[in-house]
Amino acid sequence: MEDVQNRPDTRGIALDAVGISQLRYPVSVAARDRGKQETVADFTLTADLPDTVKGTHLSRFVQLVHEYAGDLSVAALTRMAQDLTERLDSTYAQVETQFPFFVERAAPVTGATSLLECQARLTATARRTCVDAVIGVSVPVTSVCPCSKAISDYGAHNQRGRIAIDARLSSVEEQSAGALRADELIELAERCASSPVYPLLKRPDERFVTMAAHDNPVFVEDMVRNGARALLEDSRISAFRIQATNDESIHNHMAFARVEWPRPGAVSSGAGELQ
Amino acid sequence: MEDVQNRPDTRGIALDAVGISQLRYPVSVAARDRGKQETVADFTLTADLPDTVKGTHLSRFVQLVHEYAGDLSVAALTRMAQDLTERLDSTYAQVETQFPFFVERAAPVTGATSLLECQARLTATARRTCVDAVIGVSVPVTSVCPCSKAISDYGAHNQRGRIAIDARLSSVEEQSAGALRADELIELAERCASSPVYPLLKRPDERFVTMAAHDNPVFVEDMVRNGARALLEDSRISAFRIQATNDESIHNHMAFARVEWPRPGAVSSGAGELQ
Amino acid sequence: MEDVQNRPDTRGIALDAVGISQLRYPVSVAARDRGKQETVADFTLTADLPDTVKGTHLSRFVQLVHEYAGDLSVAALTRMAQDLTERLDSTYAQVETQFPFFVERAAPVTGATSLLECQARLTATARRTCVDAVIGVSVPVTSVCPCSKAISDYGAHNQRGRIAIDARLSSVEEQSAGALRADELIELAERCASSPVYPLLKRPDERFVTMAAHDNPVFVEDMVRNGARALLEDSRISAFRIQATNDESIHNHMAFARVEWPRPGAVSSGAGELQ
Amino acid sequence: MEDVQNRPDTRGIALDAVGISQLRYPVSVAARDRGKQETVADFTLTADLPDTVKGTHLSRFVQLVHEYAGDLSVAALTRMAQDLTERLDSTYAQVETQFPFFVERAAPVTGATSLLECQARLTATARRTCVDAVIGVSVPVTSVCPCSKAISDYGAHNQRGRIAIDARLSSVEEQSAGALRADELIELAERCASSPVYPLLKRPDERFVTMAAHDNPVFVEDMVRNGARALLEDSRISAFRIQATNDESIHNHMAFARVEWPRPGAVSSGAGELQ
Repeated sequence: MEDVQNRPDTRGIALDAVGISQLRYPVSVAARDRGKQETVADFTLTADLPDTVKGTHLSRFVQLVHEYAGDLSVAALTRMAQDLTERLDSTYAQVETQFPFFVERAAPVTGATSLLECQARLTATARRTCVDAVIGVSVPVTSVCPCSKAISDYGAHNQRGRIAIDARLSSVEEQSAGALRADELIELAERCASSPVYPLLKRPDERFVTMAAHDNPVFVEDMVRNGARALLEDSRISAFRIQATNDESIHNHMAFARVEWPRPGAVSSGAGELQ
Repeated sequence: MEDVQNRPDTRGIALDAVGISQLRYPVSVAARDRGKQETVADFTLTADLPDTVKGTHLSRFVQLVHEYAGDLSVAALTRMAQDLTERLDSTYAQVETQFPFFVERAAPVTGATSLLECQARLTATARRTCVDAVIGVSVPVTSVCPCSKAISDYGAHNQRGRIAIDARLSSVEEQSAGALRADELIELAERCASSPVYPLLKRPDERFVTMAAHDNPVFVEDMVRNGARALLEDSRISAFRIQATNDESIHNHMAFARVEWPRPGAVSSGAGELQ
Repeated sequence: MEDVQNRPDTRGIALDAVGISQLRYPVSVAARDRGKQETVADFTLTADLPDTVKGTHLSRFVQLVHEYAGDLSVAALTRMAQDLTERLDSTYAQVETQFPFFVERAAPVTGATSLLECQARLTATARRTCVDAVIGVSVPVTSVCPCSKAISDYGAHNQRGRIAIDARLSSVEEQSAGALRADELIELAERCASSPVYPLLKRPDERFVTMAAHDNPVFVEDMVRNGARALLEDSRISAFRIQATNDESIHNHMAFARVEWPRPGAVSSGAGELQ
Repeated sequence: MEDVQNRPDTRGIALDAVGISQLRYPVSVAARDRGKQETVADFTLTADLPDTVKGTHLSRFVQLVHEYAGDLSVAALTRMAQDLTERLDSTYAQVETQFPFFVERAAPVTGATSLLECQARLTATARRTCVDAVIGVSVPVTSVCPCSKAISDYGAHNQRGRIAIDARLSSVEEQSAGALRADELIELAERCASSPVYPLLKRPDERFVTMAAHDNPVFVEDMVRNGARALLEDSRISAFRIQATNDESIHNHMAFARVEWPRPGAVSSGAGELQ
């Protein structure tokens, strides 16, 4: 049976990325407060392709996900990306995965517990001589508008928002005690906002959250600056991007702010910048 | 060339609906305050199919959209549905279309104008002896929580929400002066909430909207009841459904309320119920 | 602290459904071939509200999901719906949940195994004197167009499609051996198409699937009729809806067909019709 | 009334991008074959913010869209971005807009005409001393798998796919005769695939498209290489990214390939790279 993918190609175009996306698979991921967490992940896997070859073998990408889905972590994803370069004899491979990630939250007054859905992302990139890994989260929060509060005699518009953080790890190897985890980034994000959100709030909790948020108004600009200050102080992180998005309650569009470090245009080794 | 669709079928299953969906087309629709409105509509067209025929001819559905897209209205959609039954020799046909619909809004203090995106829907259904038509809208609004306001010393959580109304017309024919229009349903929806939303608000407007909303707190239950009261009084409407959905700012899920009239389980001729 | 929701209401509008939607929670569901399956479910819960009361207590809906998420099944969902009517003293409650559901598939020639993502739905409705339950699935399949094959000298357009089945159970109680399961509906759907789809196919498998599908061309009309015939013969099912949707490869829109049994307009007790 | 946004900030974090997103507005855009095209655009506008200022004034972003929406083009978008830097006194501003863009297509045998929905994107970026502009399109196509065709005795799996091209203009100024237009990029994309797709095909057209596509099988890799070859030869383009995505008909995931020029890691002035 002919291997059509292995036919030579003469167009002279090497491809940056060939692969699969939107492959959803049940996975088990490491989580701090509940041991392992079973969830459903969306995978994108890519590798480069030299200009001399017609196509890549996509079934190998699916096979890789099937093999690794049972125990997902930064370390496992890094091995996946390295494994992919070896199986395909490519110089570059990237494995990205995104999944709902749940954290337990206790209501601030009654202590009633429930599970809050955040989104988590893991990305590992392997090149001939190096690997790197990025942990990301998207966290729902609530924000009260400082302008609306200051200029009004009473009330203040507020809304649900999301804080997204992507953090590149300083060292991929050091994935033991003290390693950066999605749980930590989620808590960091929650501290940047007017208040965390909770699935389950009784009336005394609702009263508490309403007033606590009103006491702590923030713009999207404030949320990313609060987050950036905390991320800059964490030596486990070599680069980051933080973005806050507000579902403005008085508009039908979004407000957002974003900062990356190092800055997108900064002179750097290239290894420090987020994609 | 064989007409495969016309082959006989022996499985004995008549089909309720065969057709196309997600066909997007540029359309021109009637609008009150800006004459005609150019927008992009998503079409779903269906017809029934007798048990004796293998398939329908879907190119005729596309042809119909191409012919009618230039002048869309309730009357035109009704003709489309009747036309479809004739071209396919079917006993039932339905044409549904949904599109962004923009209304001009002036900021409440400065009067600065901008265009607010709502969604509008038109559905026409033709049977052998009757046609009917439904106009629908989805309208972004803001709502302040009455519970949060009452139990807190200051502040109150509020959020963006949406009110969706679908109204069946008492008379399809009477599409002249005084006919029900999407613009009217949008304004009706806005009056049910704590405040309308606006794309463009200057600071004096933001102050006004913040306080006006705080003065008028509503649950999702209140919004649908306010709307239902107004809809019940409009003799041009023979049946309706109204639903309010809040993007709760203190949660990561939605709150919603819905009411239909006549009630879903009510004894009726069948012609009065919404699908 | 005032219970604002318990305030009386004088607008005279009883509400059909008040509740929460888009609450996502990690769940464990019964599955045939892999014991229990851990996945992430999207919940919608509603109850009716009498015209005399201002609002419902939505935290009770979240509490219910938190309590039941660990062991989800038709029987559990039915109890949830009944429990909800009791906690809220309502006459009607409905619990709907939808989640990715994975089935193991072996490639047809090499036997390489992988997990196929389908969607499953469970809906339970409780009224004063009865409960009912619906199991639903959405299944990706491939279909070859019979018309394209018949009128062309070679080739035939084909595409990914989805078959969605919702089946009301004849008896909610009999949830023991022989009960209807999502796995069965998925296999039924796969048999209606030109071929199942597989996450992982080696070249001998791809050859097999290509030719098997070409040998078995089906329209969307054929897929729903094939499914309807099988569903009609299953005494565990009292009502069903089946819909097939094709992502047409030669168009930029969808083709679809749908049939319900009993027919939507049929005279019935009301209990037999799907919503 | 206090201008809260103008308060000083001491956290020392300059922000890369502050702005609004998901603002939808009716727009009129230049189009080759139908003069002007009325459509609905989704806008994202951002500007940087110095570390010394608390917030930006988002109403100015909305005001800008309101002013420019009536006549959208590359030249207009470039002026918008420059205008935004001046109104906000910022060093950087970017205006991105995406909208459905329709092109008329004649069926290949019968000549029946219909309008095909593509997506188009325009992005303009203004810095102190330079502006640049990117035109992008996403185009639905059909692709027949070369491997499936070669290894099977008959048939070949095929599917709908999308080709996305983003092209940076060599010169923003030269927006006169001979300027690059979205229409051209759409036609370029269609020539890379096994066949274009059409909303409206009669049976003789369907026969033609089926066989033409079968005669011209392409992988996602082939589609991007075909496109890259054509884009490299166009002197109006200084940088590009092309990506092809297939909704694989035998799988439930996507296959894709991508290439950028200059390569993402290439040494360059920075001005040549796409974001």
